[in-house]
Amino acid sequence: LVPNTTPEAIPAIEWRDGVLRLLDQARLPQEVRYVDARDVEAVSDAIRRLSVRGAPLIGIAAAYALALAARAGGDLRAAADMLVATRPTAVNLRWAVDRVLSAASGAADPASAAEAEARRIHAGQVDADARMGEAGAALIPDDATVLTHCNTGSLATGGIGTALGVVKTAHARGRRPRVLVGETRPLLQGSRLTAWELDRAGISHDVIVDGAAAGLIARGHVRAVLVGADRIAANGDTANKVGTYPLALAARAHDVPFYVVAPVSTVDPATRLGRDITIEQRDPDEVLGFDGSRVAPAASSALNPAFDVTPADLVTAIVTERGVVRAPYARSLPSVVAPQQAVAS
Amino acid sequence: LVPNTTPEAIPAIEWRDGVLRLLDQARLPQEVRYVDARDVEAVSDAIRRLSVRGAPLIGIAAAYALALAARAGGDLRAAADMLVATRPTAVNLRWAVDRVLSAASGAADPASAAEAEARRIHAGQVDADARMGEAGAALIPDDATVLTHCNTGSLATGGIGTALGVVKTAHARGRRPRVLVGETRPLLQGSRLTAWELDRAGISHDVIVDGAAAGLIARGHVRAVLVGADRIAANGDTANKVGTYPLALAARAHDVPFYVVAPVSTVDPATRLGRDITIEQRDPDEVLGFDGSRVAPAASSALNPAFDVTPADLVTAIVTERGVVRAPYARSLPSVVAPQQAVAS
Repeated sequence: LVPNTTPEAIPAIEWRDGVLRLLDQARLPQEVRYVDARDVEAVSDAIRRLSVRGAPLIGIAAAYALALAARAGGDLRAAADMLVATRPTAVNLRWAVDRVLSAASGAADPASAAEAEARRIHAGQVDADARMGEAGAALIPDDATVLTHCNTGSLATGGIGTALGVVKTAHARGRRPRVLVGETRPLLQGSRLTAWELDRAGISHDVIVDGAAAGLIARGHVRAVLVGADRIAANGDTANKVGTYPLALAARAHDVPFYVVAPVSTVDPATRLGRDITIEQRDPDEVLGFDGSRVAPAASSALNPAFDVTPADLVTAIVTERGVVRAPYARSLPSVVAPQQAVAS
Repeated sequence: LVPNTTPEAIPAIEWRDGVLRLLDQARLPQEVRYVDARDVEAVSDAIRRLSVRGAPLIGIAAAYALALAARAGGDLRAAADMLVATRPTAVNLRWAVDRVLSAASGAADPASAAEAEARRIHAGQVDADARMGEAGAALIPDDATVLTHCNTGSLATGGIGTALGVVKTAHARGRRPRVLVGETRPLLQGSRLTAWELDRAGISHDVIVDGAAAGLIARGHVRAVLVGADRIAANGDTANKVGTYPLALAARAHDVPFYVVAPVSTVDPATRLGRDITIEQRDPDEVLGFDGSRVAPAASSALNPAFDVTPADLVTAIVTERGVVRAPYARSLPSVVAPQQAVAS
C-alpha cells in the first residue's frame, strides 16, 4: 500500500553514494517501487521505459548517470551519447549531460567533479521549481480552476514541479486552486501521476479525457491553462507532450491565458523555430493497446508522436525561475537564458 | 474468430420477425456477439451500455423497440419516454420515436404500422448514407489523408455510415483515401470500431491518440477532417463526440476543411444555438479506468461530458443526403430539412 504522504516524501530520484534510486513511474499509482541503477545502461533503460520521465528529471538522472560512469572509470563521452539518444526532444537532457562532461573534463578527480555537478543540477532544479512556483502562482486568480496536461510535478522534476509546482504553491498560499487534469494518452501521465500528486497534496481535481478540454474551456470552466515544456525554441515555440497544442488553440479561442512553466535549461537558443525541433516517434503499441492488452484490430497501425509544438503566438507567458517573460520571445528569452550577456549588451 | 468479411456483412442491427438482433459493439473488435432484444427495456439497456451507438443507429433501434412494444400491446408513450431518456444529446432518437408514434397513432393495426415505419426509417438511413457518401466523396481529393473521430461507419448507422461512408465511397471509386483515426477516448470507438471497419474494407489507416491530431494537422498530414454529428442546431452549431471541437479549431488554424456528414434527421430546428444543446454527462469511471481496471488513484474524480459543440463558423460544409450546405447555415439548413416548405416560400 502507498503510504499517505506528500509526493515530496516519496522522492522521484535519490543519489545514495554510488547508487541512483529511481521511483518506477510506470507502476504508479498502483505500486510504489524503486529501481536501483548502478550504471549508465540501467539509467538509459529507465529513461527509455519512462520509469523516469519529465524533462528536468531526465536531465538530473542523466547527470547522475555520468557520475556513475565516472566512478566506474568509463568513457564519459560514450556514456553521454547513449544518454542523449534516449529521448531526442527534451533539451534539458543534453544541457545536463554537457554540464557534467564539462565539470569532469580535466578535473583532478573526474568522479568527484561529476558527482558534485550532478548534485548542483539537482539542487538547482529544486530551487528553480520553488521560484517558478512563486512567479506562476502570482498569475493565478483565487479559487480558479486551471487545466493542466501530462505530469509536471515532483515526479517530473525532483522539486515541487513546474506547472504543477505553480498549483501547489497557490494551494500552499491558501488560494484554493482546482485542477482539471488531462489524462494524457497514450501513457496517462495525467490520470496516473498528476492525479496521484494532487490527491496526496489534498488539491481538488477532476480527470478528463484529453479531447474534453476544448469543450470545457468553451463553457467557461477554465481560468488558465498551465503546461510544462520539453524544449522551447529561440522564438518561443514550445515542444511539449502531445496534446498540448490543441489546448493552446482552445485557450486562445476563448481568451483564456496559456502559460508555459519551465526552467531556463528548457530553452534552446540553438533551435531557431519550433519546426526545427525533432519530434520523438514512440512505439505504435502505446496507442493500439492499453496496459499490455490490444484494443485495435491486429492489422491496424498507429502514429505515435510523443510531442507537439505550440507556436509562440499562442503562449501568453513563459514562467521561468528568472522571471515571467512575454512576447516577443526572441527578445525576452535571451534576458533570462543568458542574463549576464543581456546586461552586458 | 471474426470472419474476414466487410462490416456490411456483419450488420449492426437486424429485425427478425419480432426480435431485434443487435451487434454488441462494446465487445468489438475482440468478439462478434449479438444481443437479441425482445422488449423496450432490453433495447434501452443496450443503448445505455453503448452496445448500440451512433446517432442514426440509435434512432433505428428505438424505432424497432417501439414496434416491439406495439406488438406486445404496451403503452407506446411510456416506451417512447424510456427510449428518449437513454441518450439526451442525439436528436435522431427523438425524431425516430416521434415518427413511429405518429404512424402507430390511430392506425387500425398499430403493431404493423409501427413495424412498417421502423423499416422505412432503417431503409431511409441506408439510402441517405449512400447519398451522403457520393456527395461527400466529391469533396475529397485523390490520394488524400483525411482525419476522422469516433465511429461514423456501418456500426453507427446501419448503412455505409456518414463520415466514414464518405471515405468508403471514395475508396470504392478508386480515389485511394488514407485515414487518420482518432482513438476517441474514453470508449475508444475510433481504435475499436472505426479501425475494424477500415481494416475489413481494406482502407489504409493509422490510429492516433486524440491529442495528436492538432500537431499532425499543423505538420500538413491532413487534407480534410470528416466527422458525424449527434445534433445540429438551427444555426449550424454541431454537437458531436467529445474531442470534435478541438479538431475543428486545429483544422481552421491550418486552413484544412472541416466537414460534418449527417442525415437531415440530425438537424434540430427547435434548437436555436449550440449552447442550448444538453450535453450528456456519463459515468466518471469511463475516464478513470480502462476496460474495468482502475488507472487513476481511488480518490480521484472525473468529468465525463460525452459530447462537445463545434461552432458553425468552424464548419466548412455540412454534407446531407439532400446535398452539401454551407454557411450561413441558418439560411441553408432549412432548404434541406424542409425542402417542400423552402420551395413553397
